[in-house]
Parts: sequence; C-alpha cells; structure tokens
Amino acid sequence: MAETAEGRGGGRRSRGAAGRRAERGSRGPGLSLPYITRKINTYEVLDEEGLSLIEANADLILEEIGIEFRDDPETLKLWKDAGADVRGERVHFPKGLCREILKTAPSVITQHARNASRTVEIGGKSTIFAPVYGPPFVRDLEGNRRYATIEDFRNFVKLAYMAPAIHHSGGTVCEPVDIPVNKRHLDMVYAHMRYSDKPFMGSVTAPERAEDTVEMCKILFGADFVDQNCVVINLINANSPMVFDETMLGALKVYARNNQACVVSPFILAGAMSPVTVAGTLTQILAEVLAGAALTQLIRPGAPVIFGTFAASISMQSGAPTFGTPEPSLVSYGAAQLARRLGLPFRTGGSLCGSKVPDAQAAHESAATLNTTVLAGTNFVLHAAGWLEGGLVASYEKFMIDCDQLGMQQRFAEGVDLSEQGQALEAIREVGPGSHYLGCAHTQANFQTAFYRSPLADNNSYEQWLAEGEKRIEERARVQCQSWLDSYVAPDLDPAIDEALKEFITKKKDSMPDAFT
Amino acid sequence: MAETAEGRGGGRRSRGAAGRRAERGSRGPGLSLPYITRKINTYEVLDEEGLSLIEANADLILEEIGIEFRDDPETLKLWKDAGADVRGERVHFPKGLCREILKTAPSVITQHARNASRTVEIGGKSTIFAPVYGPPFVRDLEGNRRYATIEDFRNFVKLAYMAPAIHHSGGTVCEPVDIPVNKRHLDMVYAHMRYSDKPFMGSVTAPERAEDTVEMCKILFGADFVDQNCVVINLINANSPMVFDETMLGALKVYARNNQACVVSPFILAGAMSPVTVAGTLTQILAEVLAGAALTQLIRPGAPVIFGTFAASISMQSGAPTFGTPEPSLVSYGAAQLARRLGLPFRTGGSLCGSKVPDAQAAHESAATLNTTVLAGTNFVLHAAGWLEGGLVASYEKFMIDCDQLGMQQRFAEGVDLSEQGQALEAIREVGPGSHYLGCAHTQANFQTAFYRSPLADNNSYEQWLAEGEKRIEERARVQCQSWLDSYVAPDLDPAIDEALKEFITKKKDSMPDAFT
Repeated sequence: MAETAEGRGGGRRSRGAAGRRAERGSRGPGLSLPYITRKINTYEVLDEEGLSLIEANADLILEEIGIEFRDDPETLKLWKDAGADVRGERVHFPKGLCREILKTAPSVITQHARNASRTVEIGGKSTIFAPVYGPPFVRDLEGNRRYATIEDFRNFVKLAYMAPAIHHSGGTVCEPVDIPVNKRHLDMVYAHMRYSDKPFMGSVTAPERAEDTVEMCKILFGADFVDQNCVVINLINANSPMVFDETMLGALKVYARNNQACVVSPFILAGAMSPVTVAGTLTQILAEVLAGAALTQLIRPGAPVIFGTFAASISMQSGAPTFGTPEPSLVSYGAAQLARRLGLPFRTGGSLCGSKVPDAQAAHESAATLNTTVLAGTNFVLHAAGWLEGGLVASYEKFMIDCDQLGMQQRFAEGVDLSEQGQALEAIREVGPGSHYLGCAHTQANFQTAFYRSPLADNNSYEQWLAEGEKRIEERARVQCQSWLDSYVAPDLDPAIDEALKEFITKKKDSMPDAFT
Repeated sequence: MAETAEGRGGGRRSRGAAGRRAERGSRGPGLSLPYITRKINTYEVLDEEGLSLIEANADLILEEIGIEFRDDPETLKLWKDAGADVRGERVHFPKGLCREILKTAPSVITQHARNASRTVEIGGKSTIFAPVYGPPFVRDLEGNRRYATIEDFRNFVKLAYMAPAIHHSGGTVCEPVDIPVNKRHLDMVYAHMRYSDKPFMGSVTAPERAEDTVEMCKILFGADFVDQNCVVINLINANSPMVFDETMLGALKVYARNNQACVVSPFILAGAMSPVTVAGTLTQILAEVLAGAALTQLIRPGAPVIFGTFAASISMQSGAPTFGTPEPSLVSYGAAQLARRLGLPFRTGGSLCGSKVPDAQAAHESAATLNTTVLAGTNFVLHAAGWLEGGLVASYEKFMIDCDQLGMQQRFAEGVDLSEQGQALEAIREVGPGSHYLGCAHTQANFQTAFYRSPLADNNSYEQWLAEGEKRIEERARVQCQSWLDSYVAPDLDPAIDEALKEFITKKKDSMPDAFT
C-alpha cells in the first residue's frame, strides 16, 4: 500500500485544471453520492425571543468584555482601523460592528474538488459529510490501539474516497506521527490530493504550513483559479473562552488572504470553556464566531467563512469530556439557528463519542450527535465517521459503522415522496385487505430502491446469525473495511501535476530539519 | 425473588381507592421522574399539502376498498347502524364518517395509577415511556438466550418501577411461557399491580382475558372508579393490510365498553403489510386507525382511544424486518402529524432494533427510532426499553442501556432554559477571556444539575478504562441491573386488596384446565 499505488491510472492524457473541472463525474469508483441537498425541515429549539436575547447578550459580551487576539499586532491594527476599541490585546466591538463587517461574507461557498463532480456547495440546504479530524491514535484492523502513521492517514483518505455518503476528504483524518511535525502537513495534503478527488482541508498548525497548502493547491488547480475560487477549507478553532491565539490567527490570515475558507469554530467543552448552561454557551459561541469570522472579512472582503462550533460538555465529577448528551444537542440546534440568521454556512457535530470501543455507548453518543447535526441543518459536518474515544482515536471499524449511518441520514434527508408513485394507491387497491405487498406490481417496480439497505446490519434469523458465528457489527465492519482497502483504486491524477507536487514536497522537506515537537 | 417479596411494606394501614389516590407521591423509591411534558418543538416531515393528500387518499381507501372486520357480526351491525356500507365482512365508509364518529374521542387521556403521583396524561405535550412488549425470549444476566418465565416478567416490572425515566409499567414485558397460555394474563396483570405502582396495560389475547383484566382493575381501583376513569390501556393491533380480526375486536370491545383505552395500532412492516413507500404506508395507517378507533366510539362514545402505529420495514432481499432505517422514521413523523390533526393521542416508536446483541447495531437502530419518537411528539412510547432482536427478546442489559437514553431524552425535552440563570452572563463576565469556568460561582451553584449524568457511559481516560478491565457498556449495564434487582423494594399494597386479587386469580385458574397453545 502507499506510494506504489500512485501510478495507477496515471497513463491517461494530461489535463489542465479547466479540462479536469469540465470532466463532470466521469471518473471515480462510481459509488459516491452527491452531497446532500436537504428536502426536509430543520429542527429548532429557540423561538424569535430566545434568538434575539442570545444575540443581544452576545453583542453585550463583544462590547463590554471583548475578545483577545494574542501575539498578533497586525490583527489588532486591523480591528483598530475598523473602528473597534482595542485595549492591549483585548478588542471591544461597538454594537453591530461585526455583523456589519460580515455582510461581505458569502452565504453559500462553492468548494471545488479536482473532480468537478465532487465539488460541494456549503450553505443553504446542503449537508456535507467529512471524516474525523485530529486523532493521534488509531484502532487498527488487528484491534490494536496505537499511534497513527502516514499509512493510516492514506487508508482513511482512501476509505473516505470510497464511502458513498462521505462527500469530503476532510483534513487531519489522523495525525501521522511517524512523520516530523514540521513536515507532515505536506504528506497529509498530498494524500488528499493523490488518493482522493473529493474536496479537502488544509493545514492550520502554522502560517507557513497554511502557505504550503495554498501553494500545493495552486499546483493542483492553477494559481489564478485558486485566487478566485475556494479549493480548500480550514479549521480555525477559537481558544474559548474569548481568545484567538497566534497560531490560529496566522493560519486564518493566510487562508482569508488567499480567498480560501475558514471554519471559525469555538471548541467548546461546556462547563470548562463556556458556562454550564445551553443559553450561556450559545451566547459565548456567537460572540466568538462574530469576532473571528468578521476578521476574515477585514483581511479580504468576500473571503469564504463558516460559522463553526464543536459542542460537548464535561463530566462535573471528573472533568472528562462527554458526548451525545442532551445539552450539546441543544447547543448545536441553537447555534445552527444563529448561523442561519447571520447568513453564514454552518458547521457542527459529526459522530462524536467518548467510548473506547465501538460498542453501544459509542453508537448512542454518535447517533445523538449525528441526528442533531442533520436535523439542525448543518452544512459542513466534520468528524462524520471514524471518531472514537473523545477524538483521540480514529477507528477503522467505527468508520465503517458511521458510514452506514451517514447513508441512512442521506436517505432520510430526501424526505417523503408524494408523487403518484410515492402515494402507491394502485398498490393498495391491488393488494386489498388481508393480503400482502411482497409480490404486487408496485413492490416489484420499486424493489431495488424501496428502502435503505444497510451493508452492516444483521437482520437474519437468530439461527442464521448463530450459524454465521454470532458476529457483532464491528466484526462485520472490519471485514468490510479490509475489503474496501483491498479493492481501492486511486483516481487518475495528471502525472505532470503529480510530479510537480512531489517536487514541491521534496524541496520543502529538504529545506527544514526534522522536528518532532 | 417473586412471591416472597409481596409482604414487604404490607403492614401499613389499609386505604380505600380514594385514599390511595389522594396520597400524591408519598411512596415509591423516590427515583421516578414525572412523565414528560415536552417544552420542545415537534419535528414535521409533511406540509399542509402532503397531509391533505394523505388524508384524501385514506378517505378513498375507506370508501372504495374498505376495511374487513372478521368473524364479528356485532361489529358489522354497529357499522351498518352507523351508516357504513357493509358487504359481507368488508365495511366501506362514506367520506368523513369515521372522522365524524371520532369527535367524541378525548384528545387527552388521564390514565390513573394506583399511586396517584404516577398517573399520566396521554396526549398533547406529554410523552410517556413504557417498556418492551411481547418478547417470548429473554437474554438474561448470565448471557443466555432462553424462553422467558414469570420470574423474568416480574423482574422487568421491577426494573421499570425503579427506572427514573420510565413512566409506565407496560404490558407483556415478556411472555411468561412457564405459565399456561390461558392463565398467564392473570399473573401478568397481578405482577404489574403488585410489583409496581405505575400505570399498566391489560390483556388483549382473548375477550375473556380482557374481562379478567377489567375485573382485577375493579378490585384494585374500585368498580365505580373504573367505570368513570381510565386505569388500563390496551394494545389493539390491526392485521394490516386493512383487517381487524376476532381476537383484537373482542378485546377492543371489552375495553371500550368499560371505558378503558385502546391503542389502535396498525403493526406495519412496510413492504409486506403496506406499500414500499412512506406516503403509501401513511395512507394505509390512517385508514386503518380511522376505522378501528371510530369503532371504539360506536361501542361507547367518549371511550379513550389512541392513534397507534408500529413502523418498521422489511429487507427486500430476505423479507426480514429491519429497524432504525430512514423510511420508518419518516412514517413515524408523518403519522404523528396525522394523529395531531385528528385530535387523538399518538403512539409509535420505542427503542427498536434487529440486532441479536446489545452492540452498536442495536444502539444505532434504537437511537434512530427513539429520537424520531420523541421529536415526533409521541405521547405513548411502547418498547422504550429492553427490545432486542426484532422484539423476540427482552434483554436485561439493553433495558438498562435504553433507560439511560430515556433519561437523556427526558432532559432534552426540557429545551433551552432562557432564564437569567440560563443566560449565565454573570459567569461570562466573571471568567472573561482565556480562563475557565470550572470554579466560577455560577458553575458551583449549578454543579449538581448542570448536565445529564449517564450512569453507564464511560468517560474516563483510556488508562483508567484499561485498569478497570476494558469493559464495554453492556458489562456495566449488567452490573447496574443486578444491583437494581438486589435493592428492589416493592411499593406498598393494601393487604386486603392484595388478598382479593389473589383470591380472584386462584378462583379463575381453578376454573380452567391448563392450556399451552
């Protein structure tokens, strides 16, 4: 696996960026579903009064308490010039200033993929699923919990590429700790570009790594195209409460300047980084996003920016993060409403859990998070598959189990078919009282697409399940995962572009000593 | 366990029915939460147009195709007298007839419990959780899958009695197959009356068993009280498509005549008992409920009746029932809307799954069903805990896992607290940028109630989890379950009433030979 797979399909003719983009849906394993355009309602937990109250309180925080932008004189000057009251590193915002500045931010972002049929619209009725982001560990197919490697990273990129209901390659699908910390971003970005043709995320761990990401995007998409279009989106976490640090600001500035999207995300473990209440947490989230997102517009008006949030809470006994509990669900629903009122695309949720193994705890916590995420009307869903153990572990088995659930959510989002075919009156007439629908014409005609078909759920008889070895779902997931990895075929990549990317990486790596911290 | 426990607490003074009802919340282990009064929105999948379309189609089925009432001349005569067009056993309903008849049905049902503090209101904003109904098998605490016994039955009654977020004792929590089939209803009803003081369900497997249930209720509550109040609710399944059989009609008539509640529930495995589409299934459900529910009003105008549905689908490959998939969720949401428009309390959902063990499959399927159930605004939730393997098995472990989820749903249903306390502005002011909320005054003041606290989720560090034996959630559930059973204390029951119940049962049993089929 790994580098040797790169050559596959590379024999095709070379294409320019425009040519590649024109080739709609002509490649790939043909498994992937288009991103979700929700035909269902969003679920809301706040009424007009509640929303106005939280907005007013957020304004109050911005004006009275302020937000800190640390170790970044450039940002402080931008705020001063924009009319904010800057005291030291603390910025106080006159009422309405951030909202006014944010008027230039687009409400829908088109993030281009190198395969144009994978390009996504982030905003409005869209929902895009992306894999887990950040785990330093994996649970591998042999059942070991160990540090992640670049091979794991590539594997998760490949799995996300093959997963029908994953629409985005994500970012740090796991931390490849076998690569020096100052160089691994190059291998990560390259893996997304080479082993998938879905849209992806860039490096945010240092401004120069963000610059490298943009440079590599220019090689892949063309420099002019990148300047005018969003080709990479990037996770900018606030240091809640009410702080943005140098690292995040550095990355944010690079991406905004280059017209690439930032997901400004307060990373909230309520009770530690925000108040122990839903309304208080929402207020703080809104204030932080208003300040961070507005900053992107000061850097480049019109730069794409996403209202992000990561909602969890802590155990008041141990301080440990907890997932899938009711309060973070309420936060996610509320934050989605606040984002819609602000006219920004929204990110939250995923398939979060605290469990150490893909058991019923993991599933319940993930289900609670994911269901909320979809019904909230979330546009960009990070951590949609593979997240285990509070995000410390990327699990192969759970990745597959989550993918099945994503497929169900995608089907659910189609809503109720009220066409004549959906009404099925003819079937009811044909069958009549006391019979069954198994053989009727309508059933026969809709046999293939009638119901979502889970590739992992066991619905056989108990006796058959016994005969097949009493397998739990994670055992079936393991088999499916290995079979996907075995049958993976890389999408085509213009060999000239591939060469250029590799050359860039080699040059960059040679220019730095290895750093492991 | 079992009979020997009956005497506990029996030394208290004897109380009449009125006296018992007056004793609001003075007994019980003090764990139970009141039934849910939802402060959250309901989620809807159909707009006005869709609802009207399905209603019109249901009217069309009722008029054109009709519903069969089998082997029950009395019912056919009732329909004829009411103005329906009766041809053989097939009843055709003039447009609007069923709706007109249903105008006498109450929109909210008060089901009394012998402990008045456990009395529930079924309808409107209420949600009531009741345990699994019907499994012939159990998965016991030793991990065996075996036929259920009366001891299992009593155990599940006890567990439901002790579970904070279970508000109802349910009915056939499992089939006690060690008791003759023609006598076991007596032991089941007695167990609900003796080992719990929550409201419960009656026997529906034969008209005379329904009569026995009513007689026992009269002993417990007093005959006059029973005639004027609902003290037992009863599951009347339609034989979908479009048939009600003699057994179900017999029970329905007994209960309606005695002013007790029927849950008229099309038991739908879509694709077999209804069309393979959501809209088609909803149409048939509505037609069946309209006919079955209206019948209760012909028998006794004003008798309480609930719009029930059980929504699952089948695998189009194997014909096996499948659970937790998107289509049944859409059916449940839609059916809830139809019930609200009809002005009837609504039953659907629970924690359904097809899995053979309480693994991630079981949890995902249960979560999808339960979350839908709650957001749909369901009033009466059967199968809320313990359901495994398509309802063939009552699982002790899953019962505990489900109860944890019910607690979370109950908390979620409280919605967002927008009080000054909830807004937490003082906390945000106190903490300010870059600090944390762990020790602030607001956190200290709300420490106990801040977040839902799961008794089963493990949120400890990986190292601690390892040190504690790498337990999965079902292992923790097993321990919790045993500890509950060990610490169970029966609620008081007037010894005179208890004697009278036992006398009734003995007499009844002595009057019949044992029957095992």
